[in-house]
Amino acid sequence: MNATLTRVPHLLHGGDYNPDQWLRYPEILEKDVELMKKAGCNAMSVGIFAWAALEPEEGKYEFGWLDQVIDRLYQNGIYTVLATPSGARPGWMAAKYPEVLRVNADGRRIPFSARHNHCPTSPVYREKVRLINTALARRYAGHPGVILWHISNEYGGACYCPLCREAFREWLKKKYGTLDELNHAWWTAFWSKTYPSWDLIDPPFDNGERGVHGLTLDWMRFVTDQTVDFMKAEVAPLKEANPALPVTTNMMGFYPGLNYFKFRDVSDVISWDNYPSWHEGDDRETALSTAMTHDLMRSIKPGKPFLMMESCPSAVNWKPYAKLKRPGMHELASLQAVARGSDSVQYFQWRKGRGGFEKFHGAVVGHLGTGDTREFREVEALGKRLKGLSKLAGSRFVSRAAIICDTENRWALQEMRGLIQEDKGYLAEVRRHYAPLFRMGVNVDLIDEESSLEGYELVAAPMLYMLRAGIAEKLRAFAEKGGTLVFTYWSGIVNDTDLTFLGGFPGGGLQELFGVRMEEIDTLYPADRNGAEVLPAGKEAGLQDRYEIRDYTEISHPAGAEVLAVYESDFIRGLPALTVNRFGKGRVYYAAAVFEDGFYRDFYRKLVSDLSLRPLEVDLPEGVYLSERRLEDNTSCYIFQNFNTEEVSLALPKTLTSLETGESLETLVLPGYGTVFLL
Amino acid sequence: MNATLTRVPHLLHGGDYNPDQWLRYPEILEKDVELMKKAGCNAMSVGIFAWAALEPEEGKYEFGWLDQVIDRLYQNGIYTVLATPSGARPGWMAAKYPEVLRVNADGRRIPFSARHNHCPTSPVYREKVRLINTALARRYAGHPGVILWHISNEYGGACYCPLCREAFREWLKKKYGTLDELNHAWWTAFWSKTYPSWDLIDPPFDNGERGVHGLTLDWMRFVTDQTVDFMKAEVAPLKEANPALPVTTNMMGFYPGLNYFKFRDVSDVISWDNYPSWHEGDDRETALSTAMTHDLMRSIKPGKPFLMMESCPSAVNWKPYAKLKRPGMHELASLQAVARGSDSVQYFQWRKGRGGFEKFHGAVVGHLGTGDTREFREVEALGKRLKGLSKLAGSRFVSRAAIICDTENRWALQEMRGLIQEDKGYLAEVRRHYAPLFRMGVNVDLIDEESSLEGYELVAAPMLYMLRAGIAEKLRAFAEKGGTLVFTYWSGIVNDTDLTFLGGFPGGGLQELFGVRMEEIDTLYPADRNGAEVLPAGKEAGLQDRYEIRDYTEISHPAGAEVLAVYESDFIRGLPALTVNRFGKGRVYYAAAVFEDGFYRDFYRKLVSDLSLRPLEVDLPEGVYLSERRLEDNTSCYIFQNFNTEEVSLALPKTLTSLETGESLETLVLPGYGTVFLL
Amino acid sequence: MNATLTRVPHLLHGGDYNPDQWLRYPEILEKDVELMKKAGCNAMSVGIFAWAALEPEEGKYEFGWLDQVIDRLYQNGIYTVLATPSGARPGWMAAKYPEVLRVNADGRRIPFSARHNHCPTSPVYREKVRLINTALARRYAGHPGVILWHISNEYGGACYCPLCREAFREWLKKKYGTLDELNHAWWTAFWSKTYPSWDLIDPPFDNGERGVHGLTLDWMRFVTDQTVDFMKAEVAPLKEANPALPVTTNMMGFYPGLNYFKFRDVSDVISWDNYPSWHEGDDRETALSTAMTHDLMRSIKPGKPFLMMESCPSAVNWKPYAKLKRPGMHELASLQAVARGSDSVQYFQWRKGRGGFEKFHGAVVGHLGTGDTREFREVEALGKRLKGLSKLAGSRFVSRAAIICDTENRWALQEMRGLIQEDKGYLAEVRRHYAPLFRMGVNVDLIDEESSLEGYELVAAPMLYMLRAGIAEKLRAFAEKGGTLVFTYWSGIVNDTDLTFLGGFPGGGLQELFGVRMEEIDTLYPADRNGAEVLPAGKEAGLQDRYEIRDYTEISHPAGAEVLAVYESDFIRGLPALTVNRFGKGRVYYAAAVFEDGFYRDFYRKLVSDLSLRPLEVDLPEGVYLSERRLEDNTSCYIFQNFNTEEVSLALPKTLTSLETGESLETLVLPGYGTVFLL
Repeated sequence: MNATLTRVPHLLHGGDYNPDQWLRYPEILEKDVELMKKAGCNAMSVGIFAWAALEPEEGKYEFGWLDQVIDRLYQNGIYTVLATPSGARPGWMAAKYPEVLRVNADGRRIPFSARHNHCPTSPVYREKVRLINTALARRYAGHPGVILWHISNEYGGACYCPLCREAFREWLKKKYGTLDELNHAWWTAFWSKTYPSWDLIDPPFDNGERGVHGLTLDWMRFVTDQTVDFMKAEVAPLKEANPALPVTTNMMGFYPGLNYFKFRDVSDVISWDNYPSWHEGDDRETALSTAMTHDLMRSIKPGKPFLMMESCPSAVNWKPYAKLKRPGMHELASLQAVARGSDSVQYFQWRKGRGGFEKFHGAVVGHLGTGDTREFREVEALGKRLKGLSKLAGSRFVSRAAIICDTENRWALQEMRGLIQEDKGYLAEVRRHYAPLFRMGVNVDLIDEESSLEGYELVAAPMLYMLRAGIAEKLRAFAEKGGTLVFTYWSGIVNDTDLTFLGGFPGGGLQELFGVRMEEIDTLYPADRNGAEVLPAGKEAGLQDRYEIRDYTEISHPAGAEVLAVYESDFIRGLPALTVNRFGKGRVYYAAAVFEDGFYRDFYRKLVSDLSLRPLEVDLPEGVYLSERRLEDNTSCYIFQNFNTEEVSLALPKTLTSLETGESLETLVLPGYGTVFLL
Repeated sequence: MNATLTRVPHLLHGGDYNPDQWLRYPEILEKDVELMKKAGCNAMSVGIFAWAALEPEEGKYEFGWLDQVIDRLYQNGIYTVLATPSGARPGWMAAKYPEVLRVNADGRRIPFSARHNHCPTSPVYREKVRLINTALARRYAGHPGVILWHISNEYGGACYCPLCREAFREWLKKKYGTLDELNHAWWTAFWSKTYPSWDLIDPPFDNGERGVHGLTLDWMRFVTDQTVDFMKAEVAPLKEANPALPVTTNMMGFYPGLNYFKFRDVSDVISWDNYPSWHEGDDRETALSTAMTHDLMRSIKPGKPFLMMESCPSAVNWKPYAKLKRPGMHELASLQAVARGSDSVQYFQWRKGRGGFEKFHGAVVGHLGTGDTREFREVEALGKRLKGLSKLAGSRFVSRAAIICDTENRWALQEMRGLIQEDKGYLAEVRRHYAPLFRMGVNVDLIDEESSLEGYELVAAPMLYMLRAGIAEKLRAFAEKGGTLVFTYWSGIVNDTDLTFLGGFPGGGLQELFGVRMEEIDTLYPADRNGAEVLPAGKEAGLQDRYEIRDYTEISHPAGAEVLAVYESDFIRGLPALTVNRFGKGRVYYAAAVFEDGFYRDFYRKLVSDLSLRPLEVDLPEGVYLSERRLEDNTSCYIFQNFNTEEVSLALPKTLTSLETGESLETLVLPGYGTVFLL
Repeated sequence: MNATLTRVPHLLHGGDYNPDQWLRYPEILEKDVELMKKAGCNAMSVGIFAWAALEPEEGKYEFGWLDQVIDRLYQNGIYTVLATPSGARPGWMAAKYPEVLRVNADGRRIPFSARHNHCPTSPVYREKVRLINTALARRYAGHPGVILWHISNEYGGACYCPLCREAFREWLKKKYGTLDELNHAWWTAFWSKTYPSWDLIDPPFDNGERGVHGLTLDWMRFVTDQTVDFMKAEVAPLKEANPALPVTTNMMGFYPGLNYFKFRDVSDVISWDNYPSWHEGDDRETALSTAMTHDLMRSIKPGKPFLMMESCPSAVNWKPYAKLKRPGMHELASLQAVARGSDSVQYFQWRKGRGGFEKFHGAVVGHLGTGDTREFREVEALGKRLKGLSKLAGSRFVSRAAIICDTENRWALQEMRGLIQEDKGYLAEVRRHYAPLFRMGVNVDLIDEESSLEGYELVAAPMLYMLRAGIAEKLRAFAEKGGTLVFTYWSGIVNDTDLTFLGGFPGGGLQELFGVRMEEIDTLYPADRNGAEVLPAGKEAGLQDRYEIRDYTEISHPAGAEVLAVYESDFIRGLPALTVNRFGKGRVYYAAAVFEDGFYRDFYRKLVSDLSLRPLEVDLPEGVYLSERRLEDNTSCYIFQNFNTEEVSLALPKTLTSLETGESLETLVLPGYGTVFLL
């Protein structure tokens, strides 16, 4: 069964479908269905941005065309993922109710234009959304072809209008109760910024307050909360009509504007839009980054499948270079989503529009209007293959290792002044810990500080600058019970309003866990280098003699921990670069600096071996990646993907059977860009 | 006779003259005329930006100083090119009628400042311009010293004020008739952008609608039309006073803000301001770019001479580096204008001001105030030489080859999303076709899609992305009758509202002409390379074995055309890179990719040879360029220019006579930076 | 005695102290004093940005906490430098009187936020400042612990509000009397910019008038004058309470927004905030730049000591890389301030805040809260050493050489269009003349055009583009009496409203002084090079055969001067590159181009030798710098500093005695980063 889409026993295959752009072209609407069937598609997202077609005048709904589309799809075996149209409001609304239009950080209201620029607070907008959503729900929530609600589209951005400003102040009142509490939490005595009244609090306008980090963080949290609240309001009338019909909203991976983990409860299924830049650099590195993004999205609901809601069959038209995917890459990249836990391969877009901003964005069907193109044929071939993988629909992705990658921590690091100013390096540090695990075929979740640590045996928490409520306790308990923790420099510095801990770092009760006392941190200029000299104890932990160090060297002193490696030069020579601390039944590592990649490879190889985290004892050649999904009966499906252009072969540790062909294999021969599913 | 300046039997020599800045310095005004005569000047542009001096208070005209200037010039044998002063409005007008001040794309009205920032729609501004132009015309249109009207100065920019917005909506109503038509033409169903009322249509504000390409294009067309309309309003009272006195406005070459070809009818003479960056790169390449710009400007009125209205005797002061022209470059660059069809060498500026933004902009007379400078002496020498070239005044520049370089197509390519995003490469592609023709001494016109193809035998139409009304038919007819056409990748994609053609590219009826069916286009990353393997048929067309390819590789399939070269690698190996199609009596070439320069050299050498397009059968050394002007009796004047610093010599294919010395030549010896005129 | 701090016989040691941020943490306030004593601190700057704590509601003052702080400090032997709090206004004021908030160049009023953004003109703000300053003065001006007023903080920026605009117009009326005078001085006839009324004059808004350089310059002058006037208003009530208590305001070195020399009279002591980027490049070059900045600041009141009011004990948090100071650099850099004339080593900040923009800015006490850190221990060691240097408090820094580095000239060069557009190179040229003098241990002042030339024997005036009133006469008189002058290209071009001189450059009466007639100036592209060939006369002046030339080559002709070197190539070959002119009893050098560093080294070595400018005849190794301060009895204290990490030794020309140890020395052995004080 597909994810929570209980009526669909297949992986979804399809994409965004915009018949509303083609109402003047009935022959094209007919041709569409014929081509969808040819391409092996079974699910189309309909109605995204269709408000102007659905409600051309205020209160006058036009559902005729949509009835026809959904019916026709269903009659042809194609499900509908039905969108709410709130991603772009119709002209009449902008004209009559300017308050629905967003105000930017410069204080100017955006004219009627583009998309994704409504005010999430406006009562008028919420009411208009409620009305159309109610009408859609009443009409389609029981339609047998409709399997999922697609709420709005790629929520994002922030509105600075008076309504949002007032809502922000109410949010703050609820959070802090009194101005005294707020002023202390934000440390406003600095620069006489003490707020004498709630009314004086504004969001961080582009010419306004950018230096009160607590304010900025709370504003970003408010933006997320207000967006979640808006989504809840969108969902309510849909659930009223049919509580069983699941909802999702399509996210954007590492998009920094929202804390997606706050959407966990309001979304029945997680879905996201995946646009890697294939062929720009080394595709094997791009594949790693893409897997990491899949893992982040999936980990919002750990273990559960997600949906890849958008991807491009050829070249997107909004990157600096519109490079085509090479033959085979479409299949490989699509199946990577499945390998990392997706129950779908969906595209943006089914058909290229004749006009507008995305008319040259890749699509299954181009302006030629037939299936006689390379991209169509690749989609068609993939469609056939996906049919043979229906067993994977609903299978789980189980990880025993996790990395904490927390959005609010990321915001706080971005805002803080210091270190390497422009980019403190948070995501790069997360990637350093992710990469070696991924390369060994270890399933990894990317969770946030609010996530449960249950079920994990290894947790890395790089650059854990901001300790949000409860995380310190959770980490201590995790180690107590025998878990392995990996920490780095610049950890335990501030609480969740960005106030530093007093009395020594890492603060918040982590010093005992680390067994280390931090004194100061040095930021290296780009050309600066130091090195780590590995001590005998470090070599037992799998490390080699020496590793290069760059970017940051934290200066700290052992306070219980064992030193595994020390700095080799500069005035910090001999001070710890890597330590391990026994805490309860667990082990706690602390890496004080940024090391070369080889360090993380060696370090995690030993940990993974000690903890037996690999699903299969197999040495993966460079660029060959292994993922594991658990079928309904909890048996493993091993998915090998080759991101090299050349064939590779590898010996399997045991005889495995191809899910697709039933063939038994002891040695695996993977063609360039090839994927196999083994049981 | 000079161009349409029927009273002037010489090439013009002079420049912008601003006595209005020096009214407090009568001795300097006297000195000016003395120095002009010494410098061999015969024409001065007077009154540009002089409104504050002409009308210091509303309705109070001060013509005394201008009377004196024009009279004094005339008495000393110097003509006046008389400007209308609309390029900058006086302070009293800004104070009393703020509507004359322009509103920027950010919606803010510009304070009283600088120049070129009036509203072209404002009825007040138009009325004030009408009044002053009428007064100027009544007083000077019959003055024997006044030979030409210089309308305003370097029209440019756009105004976003409420008046302009309303005028834009009226313009749209006239164009589309109904909102339905507009909505379809702009494909506004995309992102629910359907306009329910005209009032909701705004120009592309900086925080407004930038994604509806049809809107952006129409806005740019409107800006041009409104500027032309403004110019017409400027011209009306002038023509009323003296219909025979010609008008011009000084343009700016490849300036992207206006479609200069729309000024064809309102201008009696084309004039433009020429500021190459000599000595920054290879001067021979700079000379080629400069020639191309002259050719573009001239081709607005093909065959007719134009005027170089501004150029700098030494260094301009607004570039990143104020590099001086080396000795000899002034003469060489000035005579290049003449070689490409100019009937003038005019400067900005006669004399450096004491203050303001351009006080260090090169001039004939500097702050020293005498002729005792290198730049003055170079001007003086050139003045002498120009006197000996009077025969060239009025001579024509006749081309049998043309390249389509269409401003609206350029706009559309700039706006479209895809390919190489930042710069799609249109002008670079145009240059690839221009360069080999220019290097062979073939006269070339740079025309637009609305221009007639009469008289041409070879037409290149690179990156003909947007097919404006009628161009497809014109091209078919041209080929039918035996013309040779050269097309490239990314052609025939959209109609003139930027809607794609359906049913395959090149669309709009061009597929039969090309004999090729396009499937997709690949954009290469900067480091990517492919190659073209030339087939035997290609070698017969003058090509060598192989050429390197970069940037774009269009993937297409022959549908009647003969393949001359194929891609050598990647998944497109063996697909056509170059084809030729027989169509009627003509030949149609299609280059599917961006080739290295050598390809265009070889390709056009054969075409030029087949069509006998060279004016003289002479092999030009690198950096030596040949132009041809046709004298009144239709005999040819061959102009050779040497942009090398070293002397070169070349054998002439027949005995020619020097226009200046009467000497007969069989071998030409050109000193570094030298120019000769041969009959 | 310390500077004008007549009650303090020591060098100050301490820094910015913000107890107002810690009023909730009384234990920390107590700990502070304990740590200050441990660190050897004797002076704290209190009350900067404390307005919200001092006046939490309008008219309701809270001085209790401040009483306690000042008393406690005094009781523990620590002086208070008491700030006026105008650097940031409290929230109630922003809410009730929006006019106190600054308006930016974009015309938008800044919301209540950050600091340094009040309107300096607002009568309300001035009144509120007067009231709080009066209250502070009445309460503390007689306190025995208060030794100095710290007026506001780092004045800077400009306000474009209607009040400031009107004040600007009044300032202009006073300056020019009539619009006619203003229009001529600003050369507004250019582009019809003639102002018909005062009301139409606006400051250079971001979308306004940027091309009338006289306007821009006057606006910058007005901003300085208005800031000085604001400071005067701040000071008045303080002086009324206690005329003997000196005032200062902390400046920012080469900050371009204000002409600090205009603060000479309103400041009793000059103080400034010093933040070099140690370890980013070559520290020896950074040390030179830092010394140059100390010298600029000191030269506002030549000869008198100044105060280094802020510096960072470790890493600042607002640079691109937060690099820590290496061990020893703190002492070295702090003592450099003393070497260049400072009577203090003060820090920003005493203790890191828990929150806000600067919570990770280096401080004496970090979040650990104890003295158990490297940075604290280094401060402590320095505190001990400073106690032994009390003799230096009040000692003078006497220079016989000066370089004119004029802020208004810098503004004018920045605004002018031409040369190398982005950076005309003024400060780089100043540095070329400063460096060789500094490297020889010659004390140098950096004065402006209004400064007296009395007491100097050598004056360099590089790029003296703008001749302000009186400077030409002063320079002539200086040379007449036997002074040595060094000029460069691009000198004597404009008067003080940026109008060019007429009749030849250098103008303003300097041509006779130079003995040279300038014709034009060539700006070289970055890759261009020329060279100087030194003539025999030049070799007698200490020069070698040849020097490389870049950036600018001015083309000029001798008119009385002797040519010492000529250009070696290009069309200017043989024209003068360096000349000397005898004028009265003096010598006047003119360097027409930008030479390689070696030229300035050789050139000044000879001049310094001829004029016997070195305090000691000692050859300083690279990176070892010598400064001289004159003690009360006019004996010299020679300060040697080694900015190398390795030890160096040098022979002294005579036996000297260590100020700190009393040891006699003939050879000086300086450890890496070492400093010695010798008598």
